Amino acid sequence: MIRVSVLYPNQPGARFDWAYYLGTHVPMVAKKFGAAARSTSIEQGLGGGVPGSPAPYVAAAHFTFDSVPAFEAAFGPHAAEILADIPKYTSIEPVVQIGEIKVAL
Amino acid sequence: MIRVSVLYPNQPGARFDWAYYLGTHVPMVAKKFGAAARSTSIEQGLGGGVPGSPAPYVAAAHFTFDSVPAFEAAFGPHAAEILADIPKYTSIEPVVQIGEIKVAL
Repeated sequence: MIRVSVLYPNQPGARFDWAYYLGTHVPMVAKKFGAAARSTSIEQGLGGGVPGSPAPYVAAAHFTFDSVPAFEAAFGPHAAEILADIPKYTSIEPVVQIGEIKVAL
Repeated sequence: MIRVSVLYPNQPGARFDWAYYLGTHVPMVAKKFGAAARSTSIEQGLGGGVPGSPAPYVAAAHFTFDSVPAFEAAFGPHAAEILADIPKYTSIEPVVQIGEIKVAL
């Protein structure tokens, strides 16, 4: 199992439209990924490790897939449409992390 | 529900001892957190968003808790011991993200 995380760095003055993101972008992506995405979790940053510090990421989307090829098969055909939608809700360029899940409890 | 993510930036030349991390640190933390951690997921970075690019994070630990106070109650009493264990497996200072889960599919 792998996780694909899309992380939006918390930049002062950046634009992030939560209504569009949660109401339009996430449902569109979820529909494109279909059952290939074993789980989808969307998170709003609350804070960092030091109490009172800002969250490193204003938003984070975490998806799990069976494998990297399964992710590529789900994302590739829709990549252009998904990426073109990002400027509609944010001015932030997201950081993407792909990782293999070694422990799941 | 909240997520606490501990992210280890992928720095050239940094030390990360996977055997110690998976065999000693993660089990210790899981035991300290107990049932307060609703889920625990440990991930090894594979790559970034561009095919062939390095993973932004060499490792990531994601935990879910019912709330920030539930996390603080589980982590606070053991914080010193957990933090003191980190240099035993890595030279990297992790980034901590705390976020509220808005969508879970």
